[in-house]
Amino acid sequence: MSLLVVGSVALDSVETPFGKREDVLGGSGMYFAAAASLLTGVSVVGVVGDDFPLEDLDFLRKRGVDLDGLESARGRTFRWRGRYGFDLNAAQTLDTQLNVFEHFSPKLGARARKAERIFLGNIDPELQMRVLDQAERPNLVAADTMNYWITSRRAQLLSLLPRVDVLMVNDSELRQLTGESNVIKAAHAAQRLGAKAVVIKRGEYGAVLVTAEHRFFAPAFPLTDVMDPTGAGDSFAGGFLGLLDRLGSAEPAALRQATVMGSTLASFAVERFSLERLRDLELAEVRSRFDAFRQLVQFEALPDRLERDP
Amino acid sequence: MSLLVVGSVALDSVETPFGKREDVLGGSGMYFAAAASLLTGVSVVGVVGDDFPLEDLDFLRKRGVDLDGLESARGRTFRWRGRYGFDLNAAQTLDTQLNVFEHFSPKLGARARKAERIFLGNIDPELQMRVLDQAERPNLVAADTMNYWITSRRAQLLSLLPRVDVLMVNDSELRQLTGESNVIKAAHAAQRLGAKAVVIKRGEYGAVLVTAEHRFFAPAFPLTDVMDPTGAGDSFAGGFLGLLDRLGSAEPAALRQATVMGSTLASFAVERFSLERLRDLELAEVRSRFDAFRQLVQFEALPDRLERDP
Repeated sequence: MSLLVVGSVALDSVETPFGKREDVLGGSGMYFAAAASLLTGVSVVGVVGDDFPLEDLDFLRKRGVDLDGLESARGRTFRWRGRYGFDLNAAQTLDTQLNVFEHFSPKLGARARKAERIFLGNIDPELQMRVLDQAERPNLVAADTMNYWITSRRAQLLSLLPRVDVLMVNDSELRQLTGESNVIKAAHAAQRLGAKAVVIKRGEYGAVLVTAEHRFFAPAFPLTDVMDPTGAGDSFAGGFLGLLDRLGSAEPAALRQATVMGSTLASFAVERFSLERLRDLELAEVRSRFDAFRQLVQFEALPDRLERDP
Repeated sequence: MSLLVVGSVALDSVETPFGKREDVLGGSGMYFAAAASLLTGVSVVGVVGDDFPLEDLDFLRKRGVDLDGLESARGRTFRWRGRYGFDLNAAQTLDTQLNVFEHFSPKLGARARKAERIFLGNIDPELQMRVLDQAERPNLVAADTMNYWITSRRAQLLSLLPRVDVLMVNDSELRQLTGESNVIKAAHAAQRLGAKAVVIKRGEYGAVLVTAEHRFFAPAFPLTDVMDPTGAGDSFAGGFLGLLDRLGSAEPAALRQATVMGSTLASFAVERFSLERLRDLELAEVRSRFDAFRQLVQFEALPDRLERDP
C-alpha cells in the first residue's frame, strides 16, 4: 500500500461568517495528506518557502507521512486569501500569490516513485503529467482540476485525461470541460475524453460517482455547524484514495465505500478552520461517522404488493 | 386509506431549452393527484374556469381520482407562464393570472372530509387552514408553501404550522421562514414553530427528511434528460403521501420509503412536459425506479480492522 499526493502547501487567510484566520496551514496537498494519513501511508510532493513554519507539519510526521518530497525553496510560501458568505458553497478569492510555487517542478523521491495510488491535486496539468512520468507503477490515478486550467491549459489537460482513473471535479468544472449542461451526460463525455471514472463533488449536496458500470450517490453529512469549507474537496480526495489504498482495491464496492469515506473526511474538515479538525481526528470518529452515513441513506424495499385493491 | 389534496389546477405555458408548451395541464393539485393516484385513492379540491378542457382529466378519473371537489367557476382558469434556462433548478415566472382562483374557497365533499391524509398544496395559508377546518379525521397533514406566503401571510402560516406533520419546502423557503442559514438548524427551527417533520426539497440534489428522531437523505435520480422541472415538488409530495396512505403508516421506516417514492415520482414528472409522463406511467415502472434508488445509494460497511499496521 502506498499513496502519493502532489499539490499545494499554502498559508491561507480565510474569513467566513463564523470567524477568520491569517496565514494558517492550507493547500490541497496538506488537506489530502491530513485526511488520507488516518487510513494509509502517504508521500507528499510539493514546495514551501523559507517563511514556512515547518513545525506545523509535526502532526503529519507523527502519522508517518513521508515529507521527503516537500522541497524548501528560497522565497515566500504560496498564499491564498479568500472569503465565504452565508452561502458556504462558493469561495470568493481575494488574492493568490504563487510565490515559490511559480517555479515549482515536482521531483519524486524513492518512496514516492513506487506509489501505487496517486492524487494529482489542482495544479497545472503539465506538472501533474510530470508527476505521472516519474511514477514507476501507478495503479490508480485520481486528478482534480479547475476552471482556470480548463481554459488556459486545455491541451495539456486533454492529454492527461487518458491517464486518469478518477477525475474529481465539481459541477461547473465538469460542464466547462465537456460543454454538456446535464451532469450525468457531462460525466459520460469526460469518460469519452479518457477519464475512466468521474466523481462530481457538490459541496453540501454530496458527491456522485460515475463509472463505466454504475452510478453511486453519497450525500454530504448534515452538519449544523460548518465553519470553513476550505479544503473540503481535497479532504474528500484524501478519504477516497486513503480508503482505496487501505483496502488495496478499486472494485465497484470499494469505490462506493471510498466515496462515502471521502464525504466523511470532508465533513470533518469543514467543522473547523484550516486543518484544525483533521489534525486531532481519530480513526474511531471516522468510522463512527461512516456508519452514520449508512443510517442516513438506508431504506427498506417496497412490499411485494403495491397494486391498489380493485 | 384516503388521501386529499387541495391545490391549483392550472393551464401552464412553459419554455425550457428543450421545447415549449402553451396552455397545458398543470397546477400543484394536478401533479400531486397524477403521482399519488398510482398508489392510492385521491380526492382533489380546487377550481377551474369555464375555459378548462375537462377531458384532460379523463386519465385521473380512470385511476379512480375523486374530482367532486373540483369546482367549475365562471371565468378563466388559473394560468402560469414560466421559463427555465439550462440551470433547470430555477424557474423564471413570466406571468401569473389568478383568474377563478382569486375568489376560490375550498369546499370539501363527503369523501374528501373523511380523508386521513391531506396535502395542502402551495396556496394561501388561510385557504389551507379552511381545508383543515373541514377535515373530520386528519391523521397526517403535509403542507407546501412559498416565499410569497412566508412574507405576505406570515401570521396565518405560523398558526397553521402546529397542525402540520410534514412541511415540504425548498432550502430558500426554509431559510426565509426560520431566519437560519444552515438548513439542518433551519429544519429544527421549523419544528420549534410546530411542524413535526420537515422535508427539504432540493431539486436535482435530492431531498432531506428531518424528523424528531432521525435524518434521511434521498438523492434525485440521475437523469440524462430533464425536459421540464415544473411540478417536480408536487409530484414528490404525491409519491410521498401516496405511499404513506398506501402503507397506512407514518413510522420512520415508512417515512424513509415515502421520501424515496417522492424522489421517484418527481424523477418521472420532469422527463416530459406538463403531465405527459405521469399520465402514461405504470406502477411497474415506479417500482423498478424505486429499486434503482437502492442501487444508487447502497454501500457496504467498513471491514472490522482499518487501523494501519505499525
